[in-house]
Amino acid sequence: MTTAPTFESATYQAPGRDDISQAHARIAPRIHRTPILTSTSLNALAGARFFFKCENLQKTGSFKIRGAANAILSLSNEQAARGIVTQSSGNHGAYIVMPKNAPRVKIQAIEAYGGKITFCEPKVSSRNQTCDRVQAETGAHLVHPYDDDRIIAGQATAAKEFLEEIPDLDAMFAPVSGGGLLSGTCLGAQGIRKDIRIIGCEPAHADDAYRSLATGTLQSLESSDTIADGLRASLSPRTFAILRRHVDRILLVTEEEIISTARLVWERMKIIVEPSSAVALAPLLKPGVVKSLNLPPRTDGTPPKLGVIFSGGNVDLNALPWLL
Amino acid sequence: MTTAPTFESATYQAPGRDDISQAHARIAPRIHRTPILTSTSLNALAGARFFFKCENLQKTGSFKIRGAANAILSLSNEQAARGIVTQSSGNHGAYIVMPKNAPRVKIQAIEAYGGKITFCEPKVSSRNQTCDRVQAETGAHLVHPYDDDRIIAGQATAAKEFLEEIPDLDAMFAPVSGGGLLSGTCLGAQGIRKDIRIIGCEPAHADDAYRSLATGTLQSLESSDTIADGLRASLSPRTFAILRRHVDRILLVTEEEIISTARLVWERMKIIVEPSSAVALAPLLKPGVVKSLNLPPRTDGTPPKLGVIFSGGNVDLNALPWLL
Repeated sequence: MTTAPTFESATYQAPGRDDISQAHARIAPRIHRTPILTSTSLNALAGARFFFKCENLQKTGSFKIRGAANAILSLSNEQAARGIVTQSSGNHGAYIVMPKNAPRVKIQAIEAYGGKITFCEPKVSSRNQTCDRVQAETGAHLVHPYDDDRIIAGQATAAKEFLEEIPDLDAMFAPVSGGGLLSGTCLGAQGIRKDIRIIGCEPAHADDAYRSLATGTLQSLESSDTIADGLRASLSPRTFAILRRHVDRILLVTEEEIISTARLVWERMKIIVEPSSAVALAPLLKPGVVKSLNLPPRTDGTPPKLGVIFSGGNVDLNALPWLL
Repeated sequence: MTTAPTFESATYQAPGRDDISQAHARIAPRIHRTPILTSTSLNALAGARFFFKCENLQKTGSFKIRGAANAILSLSNEQAARGIVTQSSGNHGAYIVMPKNAPRVKIQAIEAYGGKITFCEPKVSSRNQTCDRVQAETGAHLVHPYDDDRIIAGQATAAKEFLEEIPDLDAMFAPVSGGGLLSGTCLGAQGIRKDIRIIGCEPAHADDAYRSLATGTLQSLESSDTIADGLRASLSPRTFAILRRHVDRILLVTEEEIISTARLVWERMKIIVEPSSAVALAPLLKPGVVKSLNLPPRTDGTPPKLGVIFSGGNVDLNALPWLL
């Protein structure tokens, strides 16, 4: 597993069940096994039985520590001694390249954890150039935030835990940005139960994954202003290759749907989800959408069991999305 | 078990371990077994190991459904048919007498659940008079919100679940208002482990429990304006009798400490706690307080394991305490 630039999608071997189990063993002592919550009132709204994997309650407030911890704990001592460099909308460590429009709460959190931030323009090209420059200056080991098998295997551990506890989910839903969480969700879930449907959810204002899967060609997003600030990145060669093989479809949601869903979750479930988390639930609350998925009917005739991954909970409490 | 007015504290038999186990069996299908969460950063702040029983994630957003469900499921069919009447700061059902300054979010929630509300002045005397009047008018069965063994046994199930999962807690902390949760916590926890310390936490602006235990005489609170809107009631004969026998001490906190602790929990734990919940944690974050409890040192020399009950999460999301 390397991040070498000679990536060949046709022959790419994505992380397998053993890689994911090893990642899980490596990171388990460092992370929370996050709770899976339910909500009768949200079930009633959608005509489904929801299970929510609460990575918003994860250490650092996001699933991203799973991949980051796996990557860092996989380094040799020599590599680790030189430090690591990555780019982020806010949830990785060490030398961090961040867009200058990242939320203040995420900037402060990284500073509090001792991360060294270099700001870039909020564009993919600027992120990559700045990351290369910091790496050249520091000699640090580059860990791409999602185009990296160690990261993907780490993110896959959330879906693994999810299916270990709720083994008969009919489908699993995750938000998609760079695709690290969604591709990990595919590998983690389908590595255990090949027939489970994996569905990505994406803001219409940052629909590169939707367009990539629709066209069969990797589309990029030069920039986005979606309120879901964790979903402003674009797929990479690795994550695109995995999603093409495993994802059932991508559902799009408007900015208004993201905000109203986030608020509904705060009110009904009493947990803080950031807008990016709400993206994975928002489409399922729209009339007719659950039915349109054409999930195979359950043998006992009960409503479908839908697993939703809430990806993070880092929100500026002085600037709630519905009060902006 | 009755709510007869001829209460004799000296001979009062509080609910025992069997009553609590029966209550738990009765209500378990209707409630969430709420998760117990931890927070490394809060541990570091206090020099302790915290475990948080998240009744804010309970159905209806509060522990109160435990007692209410136990009381209602204990009624005869004949009693149930006539309805029930109770008084509340916002979390019980059926005919509800509420102070007219109750939070809008709680009023709306009760209306949404089909409860019939009669408003009263925000004073204990007005609450009781209005409740008597509604009972006389409707013939409904009166369930006092805490001076009732069925309610107390129901609230005790939270502490029972807590100790079942974390059996070696050194102390358990709960907010105190009318004393239903705190007296239930005493009986539920010490029924399993007689040596566990139970400590109540109370706003200095509503310190009737503190004064009652200090003077040995039941003190009442004619009214209070504490931001912890769930903690504006006073102890009753039953709850006072239990607290006198079982509670180690009451810790007081200021309004500012309540608000800053609530905000800290939202930020660090990504869960929504109402100010009343924060009251049970706030004193423990003050320098020297954990040490001042003089808990017996643990045999392995590690910091004390402190169990905090977060009582509820019903907050008006348009009027956050720190933005008022």
